[in-house]
Amino acid sequence: MRTQVGIIGAGPAGLLLSRLLTLQGVDNVVLENRSREYVEARIRAGILEQHTVDTLTDAGLGDRLHREGLEHHGIYLQYPGTRHKLDFPELCGRTVWVYGQTEVTKDLIKAQLDGGPPLLFEVSDVTPEDVDSDSPRIRFTDAEGNPQVLECDVIAGTDGFHGPSRAVVQQGSPGRTWERTYPYAWLGVLADAAPATDELIYAWHPEGFGLYSMRSPTVSRLYLQVDPSEKIEDWSDDRIWDNLAKRFALDGWELTTGTITEKSVLPMRSFVSAPMRRGRLFLAGDAAHIVPPTGAKGLNLAVADVTLLASALVRLLTEGRTDLVDSYSDRALARVWRCTHFSWSMTSMLHRSGDDFDAELQLSQLRRVCSSEPAARELAENYTGLPLDV
Amino acid sequence: MRTQVGIIGAGPAGLLLSRLLTLQGVDNVVLENRSREYVEARIRAGILEQHTVDTLTDAGLGDRLHREGLEHHGIYLQYPGTRHKLDFPELCGRTVWVYGQTEVTKDLIKAQLDGGPPLLFEVSDVTPEDVDSDSPRIRFTDAEGNPQVLECDVIAGTDGFHGPSRAVVQQGSPGRTWERTYPYAWLGVLADAAPATDELIYAWHPEGFGLYSMRSPTVSRLYLQVDPSEKIEDWSDDRIWDNLAKRFALDGWELTTGTITEKSVLPMRSFVSAPMRRGRLFLAGDAAHIVPPTGAKGLNLAVADVTLLASALVRLLTEGRTDLVDSYSDRALARVWRCTHFSWSMTSMLHRSGDDFDAELQLSQLRRVCSSEPAARELAENYTGLPLDV
Repeated sequence: MRTQVGIIGAGPAGLLLSRLLTLQGVDNVVLENRSREYVEARIRAGILEQHTVDTLTDAGLGDRLHREGLEHHGIYLQYPGTRHKLDFPELCGRTVWVYGQTEVTKDLIKAQLDGGPPLLFEVSDVTPEDVDSDSPRIRFTDAEGNPQVLECDVIAGTDGFHGPSRAVVQQGSPGRTWERTYPYAWLGVLADAAPATDELIYAWHPEGFGLYSMRSPTVSRLYLQVDPSEKIEDWSDDRIWDNLAKRFALDGWELTTGTITEKSVLPMRSFVSAPMRRGRLFLAGDAAHIVPPTGAKGLNLAVADVTLLASALVRLLTEGRTDLVDSYSDRALARVWRCTHFSWSMTSMLHRSGDDFDAELQLSQLRRVCSSEPAARELAENYTGLPLDV
Repeated sequence: MRTQVGIIGAGPAGLLLSRLLTLQGVDNVVLENRSREYVEARIRAGILEQHTVDTLTDAGLGDRLHREGLEHHGIYLQYPGTRHKLDFPELCGRTVWVYGQTEVTKDLIKAQLDGGPPLLFEVSDVTPEDVDSDSPRIRFTDAEGNPQVLECDVIAGTDGFHGPSRAVVQQGSPGRTWERTYPYAWLGVLADAAPATDELIYAWHPEGFGLYSMRSPTVSRLYLQVDPSEKIEDWSDDRIWDNLAKRFALDGWELTTGTITEKSVLPMRSFVSAPMRRGRLFLAGDAAHIVPPTGAKGLNLAVADVTLLASALVRLLTEGRTDLVDSYSDRALARVWRCTHFSWSMTSMLHRSGDDFDAELQLSQLRRVCSSEPAARELAENYTGLPLDV
């Protein structure tokens, strides 16, 4: 088998990269070790920046997004006694969209299987080889158990935190990684409950952070800060609703409850690996960086990465020019660190940790963001998404 | 002896309170346990917010300040390879003034001794009594060793972190304190060296923070982040200049050196005590709160406290109305927490501490402040001073 770009991983990063390359006439093949059903069922992020919406729309993937997605004009910041709306269009002229990553993935897979380039599910033993040469290859075992070789001009490692690509980059480069594990986790639930709010609520509470989000007019996505050691089986539905009611409590407002259809405990971590390239192997998305979910940056950062990478690969493969592939890692990492700092900052402002002095610092920061135009605008600009080159 | 307001402590807070009360016809007496020479020689802060300048000017204390003080239109933020000016008038329409706290104190003492109310130096055993009644008193021993009693309507505790007033407030109220000791200190020097910069330089450096400030066109005030356990005798003048040159290094720029006339190691601490009142005893300035010096907020916060307190006491003692004394503690503390958060935030952004991930967060925050209008404006508004009621 031969292609121009071998793409490892059919998450949103790999699938969107495939789409962007195909639209510009660059051949590619996507390899995925999971099944289609598994990939389409993974519950992940749900907030799309304007840039992400524009990129998907321009790539012909906006129909269902614009029909079923919910455009949001702000968020609420809450602390005891106060729920304050940050109005994004007023603060920075942009909005965000609520549309689950699962839905983005389904749209991408549908487009791919509808006449797009090859997308192979349930492959195994995926190994990038000879990435320092101009003719690298990917060895893998196909779904039927047959060993295969995919000869490429370039390999894209969009295979997430646990995929094989990052290790290959790290073995070959004088690179480094940075990591932070936060001393708390999110207990997340999906519930068949009409959202009791028009915008997401980010709530600081003495007992811990709560996030009220939604996936549709009938489905709520709710999160509680918990200890990372919490066992999901210790959290009955009643206990979850009781805690949600307490953390979002506000005079005159009531939580709507419903059937909980999914629940899990999510660790919180920051991770950055640099550089994002070795020779002809390029990393994008979670393969190179993880942010905690508080700022809703993970998916959007992956989309920004592959937007940069697609242009760079088209330039390399159709014009033979290396300038954009050579600057890709630095350009992507500048944005990665901006979003890593913002995600850390939102996370640190809202989660209870540390001592009572830290709590007062958090509250004074929240009061400031809720009363100062520049502080609110700084949050809004970062939240709704910065330009590709920050 | 009898007066309306007994003021404990002749730092800038106590002396300015005395001045503001006197201008509005309220009798007062200031007690100070140190000598005039000692008080006038203490080296402290050197940056005055616009509000502080206006308050001093309105109180008839602006002559020398306007003659000898240096109006500053911004600060430089520096990290390796970059020195970026934040232009305060452009960002928020305000400026700050460089004029040493020592000079403010000298001006205040001169005005006080020139026909102002009594100012007693070198008193001892100062003890506020019966502060829950409407006729509290201060017992003390005068400079000649005679026991004295000062009967008052109100007592102001402007006696700093180590004075007796805060303990009396804390004994009588269900209050609390918050404290943070930072894992670094400042080694500060005064040098007879013309400042090699037109504005203060706040420099992030892998080996630690450096601050280049000045007191006059011929005197520089320079700081290096050091370990709190550093002994000043281990820091020769040469070692200090070498480290300053390294931390402020920038292509095409050179440090000017000169004779070091004072050097010391300053601890870095945040401290807040609430409430700031018990009955007829009111705290202001360092007696109630300490900020690390990074944001230059200590003196300015003291001036804001006594501005609020003076109005409240005038209303109480001339109109018999308690509304402003009753709201004083809450109003002052709202501002205290805003400045405490800002000081912590500047300190945390600029001092090396923690791991390499923290360093990258600091650098991404600095890059953002140096490239984003709202981030720069948020810093500028806080630095140049917020309204009395935040």
